[in-house]
Formats: sequence, structure tokens, C-alpha cells
Amino acid sequence: MGRTKHALTWTVGHSDSPVTRPPVAVTASVPGAVQLDWARAEGLPDYAYGQNYLAYEWMEDRYWHYSAILPELPELRAGQRLYLTGRGIDYQFLIRLDGKELHRQEGMFTPFELELTQASAAGGTLEIVVYPAPKREGAAKDRSQASQSCKPAVSYGWDWHPRLIPLGIWDELCLEVREAAHIRRAETFARLLPGAAESAAASVRLEAQLAGTADKLLWRLYDPAGRPVAEREASLGREAADVVVRLDIALDEPRLWWPNGHGEPSLYTSETLLLDSRGTVLDTATSRLGIRSIRLVMHEGAWDEPSAFPKSRSHPPITLEVNGRRLFAKGTNWVNPDIFPGRLNRERYGELLKLAHGAHMNLIRVWGGGIVNKSSFFDLCDELGLMVWQEFPLACNDYEGTPAYLDILDRESRSIILALRSRACLAIWCGGNELFNAWSGMTDQSLALRLLNRNCYDLDPHTPFLATSPLDGMGHGHYLFRDAGSGEEVYQWMPRASCTAYTEFGMPSPAHERLLTRFIPPEELYPPEPGGAWEAHHAFGAWEGDTWLCRETIAHYFGPSDTLGELVERGQLLQAEGYKCIYEEARRQQPKCAMALNWCFNEAWPTAAGNSLVSWPAEPKPALYAVGQACRPVLASARIPKFAWTSGEWFEPQLWLLSDAPFAVAAGQLTATLLVGERSYRLLAWEYPGLPPAANAPGPTVRFRLPEASADGRMTLRLETESHPEWTSSYTLLLRPATDAPRFQRTLNH
Amino acid sequence: MGRTKHALTWTVGHSDSPVTRPPVAVTASVPGAVQLDWARAEGLPDYAYGQNYLAYEWMEDRYWHYSAILPELPELRAGQRLYLTGRGIDYQFLIRLDGKELHRQEGMFTPFELELTQASAAGGTLEIVVYPAPKREGAAKDRSQASQSCKPAVSYGWDWHPRLIPLGIWDELCLEVREAAHIRRAETFARLLPGAAESAAASVRLEAQLAGTADKLLWRLYDPAGRPVAEREASLGREAADVVVRLDIALDEPRLWWPNGHGEPSLYTSETLLLDSRGTVLDTATSRLGIRSIRLVMHEGAWDEPSAFPKSRSHPPITLEVNGRRLFAKGTNWVNPDIFPGRLNRERYGELLKLAHGAHMNLIRVWGGGIVNKSSFFDLCDELGLMVWQEFPLACNDYEGTPAYLDILDRESRSIILALRSRACLAIWCGGNELFNAWSGMTDQSLALRLLNRNCYDLDPHTPFLATSPLDGMGHGHYLFRDAGSGEEVYQWMPRASCTAYTEFGMPSPAHERLLTRFIPPEELYPPEPGGAWEAHHAFGAWEGDTWLCRETIAHYFGPSDTLGELVERGQLLQAEGYKCIYEEARRQQPKCAMALNWCFNEAWPTAAGNSLVSWPAEPKPALYAVGQACRPVLASARIPKFAWTSGEWFEPQLWLLSDAPFAVAAGQLTATLLVGERSYRLLAWEYPGLPPAANAPGPTVRFRLPEASADGRMTLRLETESHPEWTSSYTLLLRPATDAPRFQRTLNH
Repeated sequence: MGRTKHALTWTVGHSDSPVTRPPVAVTASVPGAVQLDWARAEGLPDYAYGQNYLAYEWMEDRYWHYSAILPELPELRAGQRLYLTGRGIDYQFLIRLDGKELHRQEGMFTPFELELTQASAAGGTLEIVVYPAPKREGAAKDRSQASQSCKPAVSYGWDWHPRLIPLGIWDELCLEVREAAHIRRAETFARLLPGAAESAAASVRLEAQLAGTADKLLWRLYDPAGRPVAEREASLGREAADVVVRLDIALDEPRLWWPNGHGEPSLYTSETLLLDSRGTVLDTATSRLGIRSIRLVMHEGAWDEPSAFPKSRSHPPITLEVNGRRLFAKGTNWVNPDIFPGRLNRERYGELLKLAHGAHMNLIRVWGGGIVNKSSFFDLCDELGLMVWQEFPLACNDYEGTPAYLDILDRESRSIILALRSRACLAIWCGGNELFNAWSGMTDQSLALRLLNRNCYDLDPHTPFLATSPLDGMGHGHYLFRDAGSGEEVYQWMPRASCTAYTEFGMPSPAHERLLTRFIPPEELYPPEPGGAWEAHHAFGAWEGDTWLCRETIAHYFGPSDTLGELVERGQLLQAEGYKCIYEEARRQQPKCAMALNWCFNEAWPTAAGNSLVSWPAEPKPALYAVGQACRPVLASARIPKFAWTSGEWFEPQLWLLSDAPFAVAAGQLTATLLVGERSYRLLAWEYPGLPPAANAPGPTVRFRLPEASADGRMTLRLETESHPEWTSSYTLLLRPATDAPRFQRTLNH
Repeated sequence: MGRTKHALTWTVGHSDSPVTRPPVAVTASVPGAVQLDWARAEGLPDYAYGQNYLAYEWMEDRYWHYSAILPELPELRAGQRLYLTGRGIDYQFLIRLDGKELHRQEGMFTPFELELTQASAAGGTLEIVVYPAPKREGAAKDRSQASQSCKPAVSYGWDWHPRLIPLGIWDELCLEVREAAHIRRAETFARLLPGAAESAAASVRLEAQLAGTADKLLWRLYDPAGRPVAEREASLGREAADVVVRLDIALDEPRLWWPNGHGEPSLYTSETLLLDSRGTVLDTATSRLGIRSIRLVMHEGAWDEPSAFPKSRSHPPITLEVNGRRLFAKGTNWVNPDIFPGRLNRERYGELLKLAHGAHMNLIRVWGGGIVNKSSFFDLCDELGLMVWQEFPLACNDYEGTPAYLDILDRESRSIILALRSRACLAIWCGGNELFNAWSGMTDQSLALRLLNRNCYDLDPHTPFLATSPLDGMGHGHYLFRDAGSGEEVYQWMPRASCTAYTEFGMPSPAHERLLTRFIPPEELYPPEPGGAWEAHHAFGAWEGDTWLCRETIAHYFGPSDTLGELVERGQLLQAEGYKCIYEEARRQQPKCAMALNWCFNEAWPTAAGNSLVSWPAEPKPALYAVGQACRPVLASARIPKFAWTSGEWFEPQLWLLSDAPFAVAAGQLTATLLVGERSYRLLAWEYPGLPPAANAPGPTVRFRLPEASADGRMTLRLETESHPEWTSSYTLLLRPATDAPRFQRTLNH
């Protein structure tokens, strides 16, 4: 009894129409991507090496025909049913059985289920035809081709992603044998009832949709330790078919799900059993659920801000309140971890998400240019206490509200909402990326965004909804350590900024040297030059100015780099110090500021240089460690006026103790020391006060005449507390001899 | 055949419960209000006089029982049906027939239709019990009591409206005899197809919902001149009952509906006939429709505005584009024209709306603190080319999204949308007034506003939707000629402001003396003092500072006023000049600014002083004329630095030619003259350039040494063009002798 799954063995080939059989078929990996199958079979060079990805481009315009022979299955007992179930095919496709069309669909996020009980026979041929990648008619060959579909725009080319548009069966697809009576859907909804988090009560509801006729539905809830908590049952009788069964359990003092740094991400387990009259289990559905409330609220003081006439509105709320506790969201922007999402799985997601968790992050913004991830991504976020800001697949385009587009967006968005609304980790729905900016041109009146608001309201009203990011009060950018135009550094613009949330900011660096050697041909490796593999991998001409390698900025501070290793080390130092500056400054701006999310965490392929903290597939840069330090619950911190200093100058960092921890901090002493070469200078000892939970203490400003420079041209500001070595912070800065400065500045003028 | 309506004769009385019969019943006017019925019968003093309204307050907490005896009706032929139809009962009520409950409802905007065919007999007693006014539990005795209902908040007391909460049957209620087969709904939807307005094509759709069984539906469309344009028919057969019939007509070069000042508000007529197999007409439905498109678009240059990192979003769009033409919205805020909306009718609406039309207005913002008006209001707006910005009944409160509130808001908002969505005049839906400001405390996450956006999207997606006003970029206020705190005048803050839309701004004045004598007792009339009838009618302690009489401001400029007439004339001059300044300055700020709507047009009862342009019921103040001048399609205009001048000072107004007209303006000469007493000084002659449609020309700045003052202490700047006397503008300002100024300034310090 119950259900069994059976894999199919697929081949794939291409042709120029949905009805033309491909002349050649090769073995297909499912889930996967047609490009990977074809490249493997035909021996194409690795797309990630040099400029090889260009050799893959033709594949986006072909019709790809998957084919599988139905296997011998144990003869279906009377009443059993056979289904073909798919979680996602990318992007437009049709399915045939022995030449007869069974199904036709546009959209990779809507699962499907086809009953084959009558139609199938062993030896029959299943065919799936995947259409060419969708392209808006008349659009330029860039992301705007994706502006009338729900195909993620990033694959059409971005400043950190080559144009390479995956196609194929990208998520689970199998045959499934079920009893006639089975569970179509078993969804839990947990509501935390108002009251203090400590003594809260919750209600948990099961909504089950059933097929066929059975006797009884049994629902069991287990606590996070696996102990049974409660059991409910519903007698079904005759009317069981296609009805929705609702059962409720009230919980006193439930174990709450808390984001990383605020408590355990406790998960209950729900088990739903469908029984016949003899008590035989016909079907089972198991899922986990977290009990928590999440709201977006106005920051403290938001309503008090003085404002002259004519008065406009207050900024929209962007402070997360979880289980009644307002918290500072420390996190990152998540992009597709692979050009080919078909090969993502729990292991791949886990490597990355554990790095984010280890860096004290609690919020992942899943950027609208990419995919909505597979269920194992959300399993991990649930388990790790990582809240998810989930965008719909819209980014940096004007998604015009034509009937055809609204139709596909309606279907795909409903599928996405239904798949994720019961997740503890799901914190925010968002329409997409930068849609209210000039380069997109959408507005509050855009029908696509009104539709998404409507669908979220209808299907998941208690999860916050944002039309896009940034909204009024929020900021995106800057993406450079130093703006060559204004000469301004992150150390200057960031303290002047006053956003409610920094939902994107970047800081570029080159990849590690050992990674660069894997995809840059040896003859191009050093010095990096535009036009070849470096540029293909986004080191040159990627975004504004000298991005993303930023040779000029590196030379501005350090002079010429003699080796690739030296160049990489310097660029990575700027990234690490720059990111640290932003996260710590954003935290200083609490409570008005409630969010800091860097652009970006990961990457879809090996970039030679870029803003990510982790190189593809999961190789941390030094900046990840720096960000982790800046995101510690409590840390000693300094507001530093600039990066490059000269002997004899007054060094004037301001000391802070930062805390977004849910616990109080006792008073103590913080000492500031400057390390220059072998020498060490004690700058100041600050008796910092005791702090309530989630409160910062601004401290004194050091005033210290800088000593002679050391041979390495660097100095380190070190902040330590006697009682808490885990709060220690270090900042690496430049210290030049007084006469040395002009030599470096010359490099600016070439 | 067809339908016939029969009035009922009602009495009304009150008791302390829905089941207790009132001891006394008096004649009731329907539509009307229980307060008016009771006052008339019991001889209560006029609520509008002195402080008499206080004597009406108890009525808000009573149960009001309407009663009517069913009349003898011509015996219903076989198959005919009898209905009780009501357009609106204010606010919560139940309906009984011979003691048996037929219907129960909360909400005054949802019509109802009860079939009485079986239940009724002549001599039966219909009862309607109206419940006490809704009050949020625990709320203070002010507008916050309205924050969990769809009862308009204004009745609970405002700075220009006494606390007096109407109750009763406020819109049509009658018996209706219909054939079994009849038209339940016949709604037209006109869509202007893309293309230049001149050569546009349109499609018009009829959607009819039918009851019973009939043979044929015939639909005829007549053009604005009454000539038949097209006819469509649908054969119904057996399946007619409760189906929706859709018919379409395509129109080439239709006559478009244009807002006031841009063309004719042409209206087509739709006639829907339901026929039986012999061709007998069973039922008819007639309505008018206008063919136009309305969108909210970004203003010219909106996407180009430079913005440093971190970048936020662009302002939301608030420029109206009608039939493909962007236009400047000149208009006003509309409030309930009566405390008792039950006595509003086409005549009352017409008096006011014709004044707005005559003042060159094209947009009426129906403020969310008040009611949604009766259908005759929209008939008139359709006919006069007045676009309507319609708010839902939410204002200046935090309407918490409790299940009970969302339920009533859902039903009432759907009723409102369905009633108005086919109106040509309907330009904007808006969630309500100032909901994103501190005094309300709602946010983008508020479920009530997400619900309204959802309902508007579902039922009327092509009409723009705003969550509230103001949104980012838009401004409300100021509401004073001179801010006593900063000493700043409208002449200074308005040129400095930079809003995309001024959707509220006020300028107070006293009412005409002859009106004041109608409701201020003679012994209180002069001088006005706080505490009595003047304060009850909002002259004192109404809003911030010395509002709304603004004695101190008047004294600041003019010194003491010896008579009421003098005080009124001075206050009204400030209002007129102040409003003119704002409208003209807003027009100078085109195209970034696209809207100027003063607060407010009319009033609900006679205020002694306030911001309205028209005193209750329909008495224009001088400011209405001034605003009409400022809103002419083309006018000579001046940007004037301040109001009060001194002899010998340099007078430096800047000359402008303003045009939002849809036609071009030829070049010409504009002369500026200063009139001081009997003397006249020619300041400048400006050869202004030719202008394309809807473009302003900034001109030179006058520099003129002011001459000696005249006895009246005033001067007039007059701008004239030789060719267009209708563009002439005049500005009245103060001119004081050089030594005279200190005397007036002393009056500030008391």
C-alpha cells in the first residue's frame, strides 16, 4: 500500500520543430539540462573555461526531444493508479505518449501530474518536447527578451552571468503508483497567537485534499524532539473524494522557530495518514512546520520624524518583527548557484547555506533575476534559521501587463505561493528586482505587480509583500570601494547614507588565484587584459567604469601589482574591509536601519572578479570571513574616516560596541591598539556601559598622530575587550610614509 | 410589461433594542435620516444654529425602527415578481415582514433586493431596524470609533464637521414589480484601443445578467447625438436563466469623452431589451457610457532625475493621461455636501458641481472621510467632464485588518467598485485619506489596503489604484496663508516645494457675513470669541494654532478690524490670493507637478470659517472666483515674493504665461501694471513667445521701486495681453507707508 516511485531512463536530442524527431539522441540526466547532456555526449569543451560558453549559444533556439520507454511495472492492482509527476520542466513543453499529446505547458515553476492508468502500457514511448527559450518579439539580445515570460532573466546575460539559457527537465520527474484513495495535498498552517513570545500559544491547522474514497484521515503532530504532541482524526465516509478536510490543534507554549542568532529554528513534524475501513494505511504525507510570526513593522521613531508642509507619506515598513521581537536583518542576496539549476540539490545548497549560517546571517534575499529554488533549499533554510525573502521571477525589465503575460504570471506565481506559503523560513514575498527604477520602468500601476499583490493576498495574506526593492527609504548600491568619479570611498558615503534598509550593496574582488587558473587559459593569466577570458568572466567591461576587476582602484591604493597573487590579495583586502565597513555602519544606524544585505552571496559560474562572497561553486573569499565578523551578535567596532593614511596625520576612528543580540551585555573595558609592522601602540581604553538587548553604544573618538610607516605599507586597528575575546575586531588600513603618497596617485592618471 | 416602482409610506421611532417596539412613531422621509425626521416631528431646534447640534447626539445610540404597511398592488399577474429594492441603508440594519426577519446587513453602500412575491400580502407590515452607529470598542469619542467599520469617519467629528452621526434609509428604497424574466444587470465596458486619440477605435462590450427565461436579448447603442450606431442580439433559448450574456460592438473614430477643458464629455447611450418569443419587451435597461482611456503615468523627466548611491525608487506615477494626452489636473477635494447625505439629490449635487465646472476644474477627489455619493453625482460628473478620484471610506485611522473588518470592507468595497466601474468619469480608485501618515499609522502591509488593491484589480483592473494620498512625491498642506511659527507665507513655501501632485492644500477664510448671521446668535456675532457658536462652527480651536478664523493672521496684515464685515472681507481676500498663488505655482511646476487639488471645495454644514471655496449649502466665497481665474486654460500669471510691501521697497514679481490648454498659443505682448489707489504705473511689457499646447513660458522679473501707499493700504498688480482679454490676471497685495509697519506687527505679540 502507499505510493511507490519509479525512475525513467531518458534520452534527448534536438530538431527544428516540435514534430520533427531528432536525428541523434543521447543519454539524458534527469533532472538536468539539455546543454549538459549534449555537451557530455558530444564532447563539447567545458562551458566554464575561457570563452567556451559561446559554443553553447545555438542550443537555446532548438526544440529538445526527451524520450523514455515505459518500464515493466508490477501489474497495477485493481484500483491502483499510475501517474507521471513532474516538479518542473524548463520552460515551455509538451508531453506525448505514443505520439498522443497529453499535456502542454508554459512555465517551469508549476508542477504537473498526469494520470496514465488507462493510457499506459509497458514499452510505450513517453516524449517531452522542450521548446526554444522564450524571447520577447523584437527585443534586443539581452535580458529584455525575458520580459514577457516567467523565465528567469539572468540567463539572458548579466554583468556576472554569461548568456547561456538552460532548458530541460530541471526538477524531479518520475512515475508514481498510488492507491485510488490518496492524499493530494496535506498542508499545515501554524499561527502564533498574540502574546509575549515566551508564553505564546499557537494554533496549527491541517488542510488535506483527498482523492478517492477512504474511511479515515489521521493527523499526528510531533514536537521538535520527535515526541507525539497531539493526534486528530476525521471520519470520511462516502464523501471523501475531492473534499478538503480541516483539522486543528491548539498548542500552549509551543517551541518557536527562531532565525539564526535568536534561538533554535525548532521544527515540528506533521504526519497525515489515510486509512481504509480495516485500518490499512492507504497513503501517508509527512512535512515539517515551524511556529513563528513574521511581520514588517515601522522602525522605532518612524512616526516621529518631523516633516514640513507639504507633507508626504512615511517610508514603508521594512523592520522584521519575528515572534514579537524586532530584529536587525543581516543577510545577503542569493543568485542561482549554477547556470544549470537542474543539477542543484540538497548537497549543493547545503554547502552554501551553511556558509551563510556560519557568517551569522539570518535573511537570504532570493533575487528576482534567478529561479525559485527547489524544495531542498527551503528545507535547509527551515533547518538553519535562515529567513527567505522570495522574489517572483521579474528583474530589471518592464514586464508589460499583456493578457498573455498576465496569464502565465498568474499561473506561475500561484504555483510558487502554494509551494512555499507553509514554510517557516518564508519571511517576505517581493514582486522582483529594481522594478521601480529607470532601467526597468515599471510603476505602482503595473498590472503584473498588482496581480502578484493580489495572488499573495489571496493565498498567503499574513506574509509581508513588497512590490519591489528598493522601495522608498531603502537603498541599492554603491557597488564599489571607491567611486573614481567623485573619489569618494565606502568609508565616507556609508556614514552619510540614511536608509531604512540596505538591500543591495556590492564590493568587488578577484577570485582566488587557484580558481582563476582553472578557467583562464595560462597565456592570458597575467597581466589581466580586456577582450579574452578575463572579460568573458566579468573582470572587464561588466558594469560602470573599471568593473569588476577594478585594476585602477587597486593601483590607486597599492601601486602596481607584480604578480597575480599580489593583485588578488589586494583586491580581496579591499572587498573584505569595504563589506565590513558597510555591515557595521548599517548596524550603527539601527533602529532606523533594519537590514543589510550585500550583493551578492554566491555566483552561477566562476567569475574572475565580482561582488560575491563565495566563488562558484562554494569557495569562500576572505570577505565572507570579514562579513561574518561584522555580523557577530556582539562586536567591538570602529567608524573609520578613510582607508589610506599618511605618517603624521591624525588618526580618528570612533569606537562602538554593536549588539543586535537578544541578550543584555554587561559593562566592561574596550581597548584600541594600532599595530604597525612589529610595533604596537595603545590608543585608548573605553569603559563601555552595560547594554540592553539589541542596542549599540557609541564610544569615544581616538585622536592619535600616526607613526612612521612599516615596510608593508599597512596598519591594523585592533579592538579588544578583556572579558569577551569573541568580540575582538581588526581593521586593516594603509599607512604610507609622508613623502610616498604622490607615487601612488600618479597611477590614477593613466 | 416591464417594471413598475411603488413607494412606501414610512414612520420611524426609537427604542433601546432591536426587538423593542418604539413607543412613538413619526412620519419618515425616505430617503432621509432619522435625526431629521425626529427633529421635524418633535420640533427640535435647527441643528445648524448655534450649538444646537449637541441636542442631537443621543440619537446615535438608539435603535431606530422604520415601519410601513404594504399597499394594495394591482394583483400580480402569473409569473410577475415583487421585490423590495434598496440602494442603501445607513448603517447596520435588519428587515422584517410581519415580524419575520428577511434580511440583515452591515454597510450602507451595498444595495439589496429582497423577493417578496410569496411572503407579501397587502396590509402586511415591513419593518427596518437601524442599529446604533458603529463604534470600535474602547475607542475615544472621536473618529477612531469608525476604524472598524465602513461608516464614514467624518460624522464622528472633524475640524470642520460637528459630531453628528446620521442614521437611516439614505438612498432609494421601493417596491418593484418585474416580470419573472428580467434584467438583473446590464453593464457596458468601453475600451479605447491604442492609437492616436484623433483616429482611435474603440470596443464596447455589454455584459448582461438575466433572471427567468426569455427569447432574445437586444442591445442598441446610440451616439451622443442620439443616433443609432449599432445593434446586437443574442438568442437565449432555455438557458437564459442566470446566465451572463456578452455582446460586442466595435466603433471606428468614436466620439471620445474628454475632461472639462479638453473637449466634449461625449456620452453614448446603451439600451438593453429583453424580449419574449412574440417580441414583447419584458424588461429594459438604459445607461450612458463614455469612451476614453485613463492612466497614471510618470511625468516627463521622471526617469532622468539623477540620484546618487544608494539609490531608492522613483516616485509613483501621478500624471493623468486621458485618451493618450497627458494633462494637468486642476481640481478640488470634495466632502459630504450635507451632514445628512440622505437628502442629497441631483439638484443639490448639480449646484455644486456646476460651480466646480465653471471654475475650470477637471478632477474631483472624493475624500475617504465621507460617503461614496449617490448615482446622480456620477451622472453629473459624466455630463460635465469632471473626473472623479474615488476613495474608499477610510480616513486618518488605523483600520486594523481583523477578520470582521476585512469581511465588511470586502463586501462594501466590491459593491462600490461594481456600482462605479463603468463610469466615464471614474479616474482613480484610492484606499483612503492620509493612511500612511503618523496620525493614521497604516502601512503598505495593512491588510485592508491590500484587500482594496485586490478587489480593484479583480473587478476593475484598468482604473488606476492608489493605496492612499499622499504617496511618495505627493504633498498635503499647508493649510494656512501664513505659518505663525516660521513666519513663512504661502508665497515663499510654495515656490520652494517640489511635489509631483498637491493633492490637498488649504487656505481658510470666514464665511460671508450674511451667512454667519443665520447660525451665530446675534449676541455672539461680533467680536468673534472662542467657546460659543463661533467655536462650534470651527472658527476657533479647530486645527493647529488660531484656526480657522485666523484672527491673528488677519490682524498681522491689516491691524484691528472694526466690523464683522471688515474682518470677513480681509479674511476672504487672504484666502483668494493664497489659493491663487498655490494653483498658479503648481502649474508653473509642470511637468513634474501634474495635480493641484485644494482642501476643500464644499462643506457639510455652515462653517463660520474654514478652507472651503463654497459655503454650505452652495454659496461661493470670493476664493472660488479666484481659483477659477487661476485654473483658466491660458492666463497671465506672476510669481510674487510676498504679500505685504512697503513704499520704497523693490517690487520684483516674475511674469509668466501659463497654459495647460490643448491648443497652441501665438506670440504676443503682456503688460504689467501696478495700481495704487487712483494711480497706475506701467511696469513692463513682455513679448511672450508662441507656445505649443500645454506649455508655460517663464518671463522677465519686474524690478520696480514701490511708490507711496494709498489710503486703503493696498495695491493691485494687473497683467494684460492685448489680444486676449480673457487671460487678464490681477493680484491684490498690501502696500504700507514706510513708517507704518511696526504698528501692525505689535498685534502679533498679544
